Order: sequence, then C-alpha cells, then structure tokens
Amino acid sequence: MGDSLLTSLNDLPIRDDLRGREPYGAPQLDVPYALNTNENPYPPSAALVNAIGEAVKGVAGSLNRYPDRDAVKLREDLAAFLNRDTPGAGLTGRDVWAANGSNEIIQQILQAFGGFGRTALGFEPSYSMHPIITSVSGTAWINAHRDADFGLDPERAIKAVEEHRPDVVFLTSPNNPTGTALPLEAIEAVLKVAPGMVVVDEAYAEFRRAGTPSALTLLPGNPRLIVTRTMSKAFAMAGTRLGYLAADPAVIDALLLVRLPYHLSAVTQAVARTAITFGDELLDSVNALRRERDDVVAWLRAEGLEVAESDANFVLFGRFADRRGVWERMLDRGVLIREVGPPEWLRVSVGTPEEMAAFRTALKEASKEVGEAGPGGVGGRPPSGERESL
Amino acid sequence: MGDSLLTSLNDLPIRDDLRGREPYGAPQLDVPYALNTNENPYPPSAALVNAIGEAVKGVAGSLNRYPDRDAVKLREDLAAFLNRDTPGAGLTGRDVWAANGSNEIIQQILQAFGGFGRTALGFEPSYSMHPIITSVSGTAWINAHRDADFGLDPERAIKAVEEHRPDVVFLTSPNNPTGTALPLEAIEAVLKVAPGMVVVDEAYAEFRRAGTPSALTLLPGNPRLIVTRTMSKAFAMAGTRLGYLAADPAVIDALLLVRLPYHLSAVTQAVARTAITFGDELLDSVNALRRERDDVVAWLRAEGLEVAESDANFVLFGRFADRRGVWERMLDRGVLIREVGPPEWLRVSVGTPEEMAAFRTALKEASKEVGEAGPGGVGGRPPSGERESL
Repeated sequence: MGDSLLTSLNDLPIRDDLRGREPYGAPQLDVPYALNTNENPYPPSAALVNAIGEAVKGVAGSLNRYPDRDAVKLREDLAAFLNRDTPGAGLTGRDVWAANGSNEIIQQILQAFGGFGRTALGFEPSYSMHPIITSVSGTAWINAHRDADFGLDPERAIKAVEEHRPDVVFLTSPNNPTGTALPLEAIEAVLKVAPGMVVVDEAYAEFRRAGTPSALTLLPGNPRLIVTRTMSKAFAMAGTRLGYLAADPAVIDALLLVRLPYHLSAVTQAVARTAITFGDELLDSVNALRRERDDVVAWLRAEGLEVAESDANFVLFGRFADRRGVWERMLDRGVLIREVGPPEWLRVSVGTPEEMAAFRTALKEASKEVGEAGPGGVGGRPPSGERESL
Repeated sequence: MGDSLLTSLNDLPIRDDLRGREPYGAPQLDVPYALNTNENPYPPSAALVNAIGEAVKGVAGSLNRYPDRDAVKLREDLAAFLNRDTPGAGLTGRDVWAANGSNEIIQQILQAFGGFGRTALGFEPSYSMHPIITSVSGTAWINAHRDADFGLDPERAIKAVEEHRPDVVFLTSPNNPTGTALPLEAIEAVLKVAPGMVVVDEAYAEFRRAGTPSALTLLPGNPRLIVTRTMSKAFAMAGTRLGYLAADPAVIDALLLVRLPYHLSAVTQAVARTAITFGDELLDSVNALRRERDDVVAWLRAEGLEVAESDANFVLFGRFADRRGVWERMLDRGVLIREVGPPEWLRVSVGTPEEMAAFRTALKEASKEVGEAGPGGVGGRPPSGERESL
C-alpha cells in the first residue's frame, strides 16, 4: 500500500467538525510510576487471576456462538453489588445495564437522548470524555462551569439548566479531575428542573469518604435519572472494559434501540462476573487507597500546596505557573502524572505507598528544578486559605 | 424501584426518530438446532480452549491497567492473516483497525464520515445493521436496491451513486442475507464515481468459492476504500466480538477521532490473538462448511426450490407464500432458521452434517404441513429457471 501512504486524514471526506481535532488520550508511556490515568495500582490476586482464567476456559468452548445479547446474569450480579454498596438501593438486573466501559454507556445515552438539534450540558472542569462523546454523537455541548471551589451551587445549577434546557445533563460525582463529590441537594435541584435526562457519573463513587451519599438513593421515582459506574477503578479492572448504569427499566428499553447487538462479549461477561465474586478482596484495595489519598492530601497541604478535596482515587493540586515544566521534570524521574484540568493544577492518581513515595520525591525535586520563577516550588507558598477563592 | 415500573420508554425524552422502533435482534432461543445467526457450528478445540484460558491468565494479572489503546500487536496479527487470505494484499498493522465486532467498526466509520446532513447508501436486501447503525449515527439512509438476482449491475450502481452522491456507500460481499459475492468490477465502478467512502463488508469472505476475489486487492491507490472483516464467522469467535477493517492508514487516523478510548479490552486482544495462532484449525472448519453449503444448495434445488448462489456460510431459499408458517413449523421441530430478506424467502445458516440433516427433515415436514396453499411444499414446484427473473 505504498502509494496510499501519501494520503492524509485531511484528504479524506471526514465530518467538517472533526477536522483539526486530535485523538483523545493520555500518553501510554512505559514508566516506573504510572500515576496518570486513575488506575487502581493493586493488581488482581493470584487467586483471582486463576479464577478469571478458569472462567474464560468455561466459556471458550462456546465462543463460536454469540454471547447473551442482554447480559442478564452479569446485570443481576452488578445490581447485587450496588445494593451492597448503597444499602436500600433495592436494584434488580432490570434496573442495570452494562457496556464496554462507561464511555460506551455514555455514548449509548447520547445516542438515545441526544443527537443533532439536541444539547448536553456539563459543569467543567469535569471528565473530558463527556464533551467529546457528546460532540461525536452530533449533540451540542454546553459548559456551565463549576464553582471556583470545583463544587456546584444548587441555585446556580438550576439557573443554568433553566436557561439552556438541555436534553442531557452530566453531573460527575466524585468529579474528575477535581475529586469533588456533590451533595445530593445539588443533584436533586437539577433533577427538579431538568427537562431531559440527568446522568450522574459515579465512576469513582466507591472511593468516597464516609458519609458521602450516592445518587443511587435518588433513583426511585426519578425515571430520568441515570447513575453510571465502572469496574475500571474500585474493581481494578480497567483492562476488562466494563461500565454500567442503574436507572429505571424504561431507560434501558431506550438504550436497547441504539446499542450494537451483542456489544458485550461472552469473555467480558465471564471476567466481570468473576471479579464481582472477589468483591471483598478488590474492595479492600479501595480502603487502602482511600487512606493513601488522605495521606497525600495532607502531605501536599503541609508542603504549602493547594489541594482540592478528594472523594476519588486521585488528587488535584497546584498551583504551578509552569505546570508543564513540573510535569516534564517528574516524568524525567519516571513519575508520570496528568497535566489536566484548570491551568496551574496537576492531577496525581493514588498509587501504592511505594509509588506515592516516589511521587513525593519527584515532586519536590521537580519543583525545585523549575525554580522560584513560579509559585510551584514545594514549600514556596504559605499553606494559606486561598483555596477558598479559586 | 417499584414506583418507576410504571414508566414506559415513550414517557422518556428519547430522540423523536427512535420512537416506535423495536430493538434489533434475532430471537435468542434455546433450541437443538440454531441455524439462524450464521454462527460457525464448530466450537473451538480443546487445545484452543486451553490456550485461550492460559492467554487470559497471562493478561489477568495486569487487568488493573488500561489495555493498549491502539491494539498494535493484534492489528499486526490480523494484517498477517489477511496477507495469507489474500496473497499480495501487502498489509501491515498500520493498515488494519479492530473493534468490538464489525458493528462497532461500522459505527466508527459512520461517526467519522457520516452524521447529520450526510447520507449513506446501500443496496438492499443486505445486512440489516447497515441502515440501523446509519440512522443511530444521525446519517440519512438511502436504499438503492439490489438487482432481481441479488447481484449489482455496475452501470446501475454507478447511476445510483451519481444520483445520490452519498458520503458512505456500503457494498456487502458476500452479501447477507443472499450469499451473493460481487465481482470486483462492480466495486471498482462504485469506487470510480463515489464522492465519499466505500465500505466493502466482507464478513463472510473466507467462505467465498474458489476464484471469487476479495476487495483487499483493490486497496492500493484507493484511500477511500474500507474493507471490513470479522472473527465471528470463519474464525468461529462470535462470542469474542472482534471485527476489523483494512484501509489506508489515513482512514484509521480518522477513526481515532471518534473511537472510544480503550474500546478494546486487554482480554479481547489476548483471546483474538490466540485464536489467530490457531488459524489453520479454525479455517479447516471453513472448508467443511463450504462443502456442506454446496451440498445443501444442491439438495434444495433438487427439491425444486429456488436458491440464491452462496459464497457465504448460509443459504437463502424460497419461495414460500407462507414463510412464517414454514419458519414456525420448523421451530416446532427444534430447527431455528431466519425469517429475513425478501418476502417468500428464508435463510438457513450452514451447520454440521447432523444439523443439516435435521434441517432437511424439518423443512420437508414443515412444508408438507403448511400444505398446498403456498408454493413452498418441497417438491411442489419444478426446478425451473425462474430464479433468473427474481
């Protein structure tokens, strides 16, 4: 195909609104300390690895057949997990839907409830795939902005929804990349006025601090509410690609009109179901990560940095006049964090104690190297109350 | 969630053009003889089952990490397979892209090259997901019809493309549900006049009869040509969900703008790569199925039925005034075939010799039961040349 190597993307008749865009994605670099994509650093145990292998062997003999198109058993297992995560949720498999990562869940929601001439509204900074998937689906994106402290004032949220009357609202709680959890009052306020669907993206919900509620408790009586979850983070199954949602069964009926038939492989269904049976083991790592998160938040503050409150498995901290410089110098030291979110801030995923020790050392050295030019030298600014005025 | 059970799909703010639609999908019934979804009846061997289990164990220990977002090694393996399937294709991993089933491949193509205000054109009867995925993507669908013999006259195809100037053209070869392969001349004719992308859906290509070419040979110099394939049929991996395409690397650059990041799980990548290493074994079943197909075509004709020429692993046959009656009475006998395609015709997937014996018995009995009312009684019509005038 030598001839065609001369063709470039721009020579092709792609959609006009895609021209000039860059593919999404954090760099996939081979580094000693990958703290950039909010992965769970604790790999599956040997027992789980073995159980996954055996489960896949169990289905491999019939891989010539299509999988259960509706993933009925997996959805029942996920419902049971959610009922444990949020007592009183009272969910059944009919209230749960699953897909290849919560990205595909979000895409299906936009395909069913968005589209050309419709709008989706979010409060940024937030998960950057929300606007990307929205726009690929032909839906217009409206950014109504988070508050200065990365929270969301219910009154302001209501005003934004009433002004724009979006077909889909995204609320991310805990929010990525800031870690901020929303109070249920903010979600209820939006639900009360939203003319369309309200999606609460709870990808990081299992990491929330004690007392922080889940929007799952709001599902009864709210057929326009969708709560999305993932097995990528708390379940340490990012490589499996399993996202899911809980909602009124009518919502799932709507998604059946747009989902690709047989979208979820027999192998994915088997691996996910196996991981759920190891829930205790997997969720132990969640508790370790919550402790490690609280430690790194305290350390960053003690070093004089601003830190956003985090109910997730990552921490947003700043500010750095030259955040790119700090990021690069940390990468030089084998520590890959994420240059994302508001300017002057950086995000670190919470890793193992060893990884976080490497993070602390690299951040100190990198900040020193970047020097006094910016305010980012660790220890270079007072542990002030300025965070309140972000 | 008892309250919300009262909500129906139509109470929700779904896209207007989705209202009243039914979810796609053949019935997933538990029957002794499932000959309705063109699955490969030969399950993976014990050796392959074991190798798949071991391969998944090999990746399970790092499932806490995201998969290779670009599936580089899998794409190299698929390119090598295509070079074997079609000598001279000369493909590398850069020319190949993979996704969760060819449905997701088709969706990505429409997301990049279709969308609101754009059109996709196909020649029906053909794969029914083409118009469905097209419309979910917001693209308008144009049906330019196949010829009466289910083929595609190049002159007529050119006229249709020149008249409608579609952004995407679908050519299915071998065609589903008719089994008809297109001559390269028809594809070249369309390529010459198409203003947009030309997708040749070759899901069943490995079953083509000797001498039938693949559109892969047309790729050099045609950066607007996309050839799609799947591991569901010849590779007997329907449960794995692995579709792929070959095209100019610029096409893949375009798809990177719309693909969901990390769409293809580490497990899927490992299972697919393992199956490819068992290619000889898997493709042995292809040869057995080709022979079985030719036998069932001959038998149906000997019984006086009309049969479409088939280069696939299924056979379309007719005609039946009451095809639903025949279909139901065969299902009563545990033989599930597909009521699909043009009226009066039925489609049977080619199974094992035992399955096809059951099919023959059931078809004879069902036709007799439906009786003289329709022309479908096996033996009830002469083995005429009427097929030419369909």
